[in-house]
Amino acid sequence: MEIIRSNFKDNLNKVYEAIEEADFLAIDGEFSGISDGPSVSTLTNGFDTPEERYQKLKKHSMDFLLFQFGLCSFKYDHTEAKYIMKSFNFYIFPKPFNRSSPDVKFVCQSSSIDFLANQGFDFNKVFRNGIPYLNQEEERQLREQYDERRSQANGAGTLSYISPNATKCPVTIPEDQKKFIERVVEQIEDLIQNEENKNLQLEPSIPGIIYLCHYCFQKERYIVISKVDEEERKRREQQKQAKEQEELSDAVGFSRVIHAIANSGKLVVGHNMLLDVMHTIHQFYCPLPEVSGLVSLQVIYKILLDTKLMASTQPFKEIINNTSLAELEKRLKEIPFNPPEVESAEGFPSYDTASEQLHEAGYDAYITGLCFISMANYLGSFLSPPKNHVSARSKLIEPFFNKLFLMRVMDIPYLNLEGPDLQPKRDHVLHVTFPKEWKTSDLYQLFSAFGNIQVSWIDDTSAFVSLSQPEQVQIAVNTSRYAESYRIQTYAEYVEKKHEEKQAKRKWTEDSWKEMERKRLKTQYTPYIPQSRYYCGCHEFLPSLMIHWTESGELCCNPGAVNCCMTCICFLFALSCLFRLRSLCLKSSLYTV
Amino acid sequence: MEIIRSNFKDNLNKVYEAIEEADFLAIDGEFSGISDGPSVSTLTNGFDTPEERYQKLKKHSMDFLLFQFGLCSFKYDHTEAKYIMKSFNFYIFPKPFNRSSPDVKFVCQSSSIDFLANQGFDFNKVFRNGIPYLNQEEERQLREQYDERRSQANGAGTLSYISPNATKCPVTIPEDQKKFIERVVEQIEDLIQNEENKNLQLEPSIPGIIYLCHYCFQKERYIVISKVDEEERKRREQQKQAKEQEELSDAVGFSRVIHAIANSGKLVVGHNMLLDVMHTIHQFYCPLPEVSGLVSLQVIYKILLDTKLMASTQPFKEIINNTSLAELEKRLKEIPFNPPEVESAEGFPSYDTASEQLHEAGYDAYITGLCFISMANYLGSFLSPPKNHVSARSKLIEPFFNKLFLMRVMDIPYLNLEGPDLQPKRDHVLHVTFPKEWKTSDLYQLFSAFGNIQVSWIDDTSAFVSLSQPEQVQIAVNTSRYAESYRIQTYAEYVEKKHEEKQAKRKWTEDSWKEMERKRLKTQYTPYIPQSRYYCGCHEFLPSLMIHWTESGELCCNPGAVNCCMTCICFLFALSCLFRLRSLCLKSSLYTV
Repeated sequence: MEIIRSNFKDNLNKVYEAIEEADFLAIDGEFSGISDGPSVSTLTNGFDTPEERYQKLKKHSMDFLLFQFGLCSFKYDHTEAKYIMKSFNFYIFPKPFNRSSPDVKFVCQSSSIDFLANQGFDFNKVFRNGIPYLNQEEERQLREQYDERRSQANGAGTLSYISPNATKCPVTIPEDQKKFIERVVEQIEDLIQNEENKNLQLEPSIPGIIYLCHYCFQKERYIVISKVDEEERKRREQQKQAKEQEELSDAVGFSRVIHAIANSGKLVVGHNMLLDVMHTIHQFYCPLPEVSGLVSLQVIYKILLDTKLMASTQPFKEIINNTSLAELEKRLKEIPFNPPEVESAEGFPSYDTASEQLHEAGYDAYITGLCFISMANYLGSFLSPPKNHVSARSKLIEPFFNKLFLMRVMDIPYLNLEGPDLQPKRDHVLHVTFPKEWKTSDLYQLFSAFGNIQVSWIDDTSAFVSLSQPEQVQIAVNTSRYAESYRIQTYAEYVEKKHEEKQAKRKWTEDSWKEMERKRLKTQYTPYIPQSRYYCGCHEFLPSLMIHWTESGELCCNPGAVNCCMTCICFLFALSCLFRLRSLCLKSSLYTV
Repeated sequence: MEIIRSNFKDNLNKVYEAIEEADFLAIDGEFSGISDGPSVSTLTNGFDTPEERYQKLKKHSMDFLLFQFGLCSFKYDHTEAKYIMKSFNFYIFPKPFNRSSPDVKFVCQSSSIDFLANQGFDFNKVFRNGIPYLNQEEERQLREQYDERRSQANGAGTLSYISPNATKCPVTIPEDQKKFIERVVEQIEDLIQNEENKNLQLEPSIPGIIYLCHYCFQKERYIVISKVDEEERKRREQQKQAKEQEELSDAVGFSRVIHAIANSGKLVVGHNMLLDVMHTIHQFYCPLPEVSGLVSLQVIYKILLDTKLMASTQPFKEIINNTSLAELEKRLKEIPFNPPEVESAEGFPSYDTASEQLHEAGYDAYITGLCFISMANYLGSFLSPPKNHVSARSKLIEPFFNKLFLMRVMDIPYLNLEGPDLQPKRDHVLHVTFPKEWKTSDLYQLFSAFGNIQVSWIDDTSAFVSLSQPEQVQIAVNTSRYAESYRIQTYAEYVEKKHEEKQAKRKWTEDSWKEMERKRLKTQYTPYIPQSRYYCGCHEFLPSLMIHWTESGELCCNPGAVNCCMTCICFLFALSCLFRLRSLCLKSSLYTV
């Protein structure tokens, strides 16, 4: 269902109802751009830490506009054994609602706009009919403005049409305008004396004469003065308040949908959803937290699930090659998956997945929901006895909660909203600085003795270079010792130095919260302690996790660490179908630590 | 005529022809916004100097996109005694033409977008079908890229499909992929040996195997290897060069229209055109000059005429109340003006001024042209004998050349592109600084003893306040001497202090061009020397001008200052119709200096 400015109010209750009754919600956003600074490849450096990635997106992606929001509610009908779906496609635009309202500036990135244009995106609908919105602070300010005006009006015991400066500023009336003013004064005195007349319509003033009470005598506009008794005054005042209340509601606009999602506490599913989450908070709610403190990303969404992360993790990782939304949706219709049984609710148009409408936010939200259902149900096949339907409340999917996929990061699959981020082993990675004239080919040249390398650009004059053999890292550092034009250090040295710089900076500040943050960061960078065990493939990123394979091939679970293991995605499988899990894990490569 | 990406190339010669044959051109631009920083009222402070205004617009307006450009050519047909008009409405969008091309980011201002949306502006046409463009530097870089690739290819004696790193980077072939590579090598050797086969189509590689030569083996894409002799190689190379040349032309796109305007040297007319001029230079040509050095704004447009300035100046000022484009167009159809005789050229659609299409750039350019013709012809009525048609080359309109209207500046009507800017007398103006909590009403309160005042906000904590009586300026300054929360100084003191600050800053730099600039600025701010004479109304802004009324009512022209007077807009009238001018001038108020 397409929701624009003109049909928003009429359909808002439908939206509320859909959210309220849903088992889970799927969302998607379309933006006017991705990066206003670095190229996308620099923005998404392969060796970003989750914190760094968050900071980069916060700095370089938030000035774009989220101008289409897809919301799809899924409710399971047990008798029919199928999902009932309601899909909403919102067009959003910060139309200024009056002269003192915020005049939002947003950035557009040509490549993103061009991409959407090629998909048939309707920009006219956004700009002509987009639903306005306010964040919490703007809403508070507007409410204050109304309250202030009202209390001013009440205090003066008059209607609230008071020009704020009228009482303070003494006006010198020019000689040639005195006649006009005198005539007006006379007319008003007549009105007050005369019991029969209730209204007085002042004549439009002669051009070039004056502005009276800040009202503009132009064309068809003129001032009407009315006599009112106390009762009439109150009635008008109430009318006015009701109107103000409605204006305020209209101005808050689309943010009311976001508030409803926040209040519902429902599971919210998205595909590669980090930017969607950040944008919705930033645009409709409040400024993003300074330091990630990533828990606070849950200010709107209490439980999040990212289908791209789910599809990239065991037990899906092995059987899904391409996790792009369109390809994933196709793959999940095939064996061993089952296409989910989903039907549009009555009165809601249905999408046809055969004729793709990709990058319409409503459609993308819809197929994200389909993907989630297919994958959740697949998890049921591991249970004994197997289950065809796994609900959005099942323990089976909890391991995937509140972990957001990190684009293009090589060795950290997700940003963890509920605990410390993963500590990847980067002992094969070098940090290289060089003159800004250097190109990728110069780095290939420099490292030609070390076989295949991978280059991840940081900026014009530095990059991470990962070698295929960790043992060669020290050799590379040693050979560079006397080089003049470039400098090579290990990843660990780089992190240490960066951390020291941060500490030095922080020494100058006395704010205690910053001091606390420093400590938090320090914890985060505790040096990695190697353990000589084998790890199952799905844990290649998690050396500190407690489920592991022993050298003799036994599955080992560190006793007392069950809480920790609850975050381990395959823990439940490990318990319910040990053998099958073992074979799954063995298929992926094993890593010696 | 609407020009979009798809019909641009086919119609470019029509555009060139129209420019070539025109007597004058009219232009107009539509932008995605006006100010990305201060509010429009702060951006256009009433007491900005032309230099300050230029700097503010440069800083706060250039990140918006000029996305519609109207060009209207007017050619006078002497036998028919009417103008033949060709109108073009270009949609413009910086569509990236390949992966390495600039990915332009531009800002949108909600209020501007909303305004255009309400006028029915078609954003889809801009974003889906806008014509791309490059500025001179981007064009140069692209040309260099092509040249470099070509010389690389020629040097190697091969086709230029060379991956830049291919030769430098030694690839270690993984064990499991060696078979595939060996098979490809065999096939190529066969091709070379076998005289009959000219082409070899390689099999798409198995998923997950490798990328060969940076080509992606995906879906329907595969590599074809061809044997070619020297002649065939040259033919292909030439084909490729021709294709590259065309790509380059396509990428330069709309900028070619701007180049044609620049090369024509024709008179270019606009309405309130400062932003149009700045945007076209910035977007299609080169970065705007650092310091105004405003002559360089003529890099594209050799001769400019601003119809808003013309309508605000004698002899039009007295008989035109409203200089907004729509109102001006209406006014200029009435007595004493004559609606101009203008006809669309064959094959060009005509605009109907009765059904307004305001804020479509093509239409706005068209009616700007109409306004210019009406006003120019009106000047002919002052000649003896009177002339009905005044051409775009007439001396009569020269006084209006290269002066651009300054929005909302109280006492400087225009920015002068050809000489020093006007030096207004600001002896009734105060500069006030105060706590950021202050509102306009606080300033009214503060100056309540001084009668009517005008407030021009500079920023949160300062404003210019102009009194109606210059004699009261010193009183106001004196009363504030012991005030704690605010500070008042005269305009002259403010300018002096600002200038000193600039000098102090400049002392630290050693660049000689900056030193020169300082001197220029110093000249600009020579203190005003009062002269006790009366000035005619049209010179109220120009105390240093040489035509003036003596106390006895005689028109006086300073001998030897004829050059200076050439910039005085009514000089020619003064010579040709002395008496009529005197009565015109006497109608406006007289100022004692």
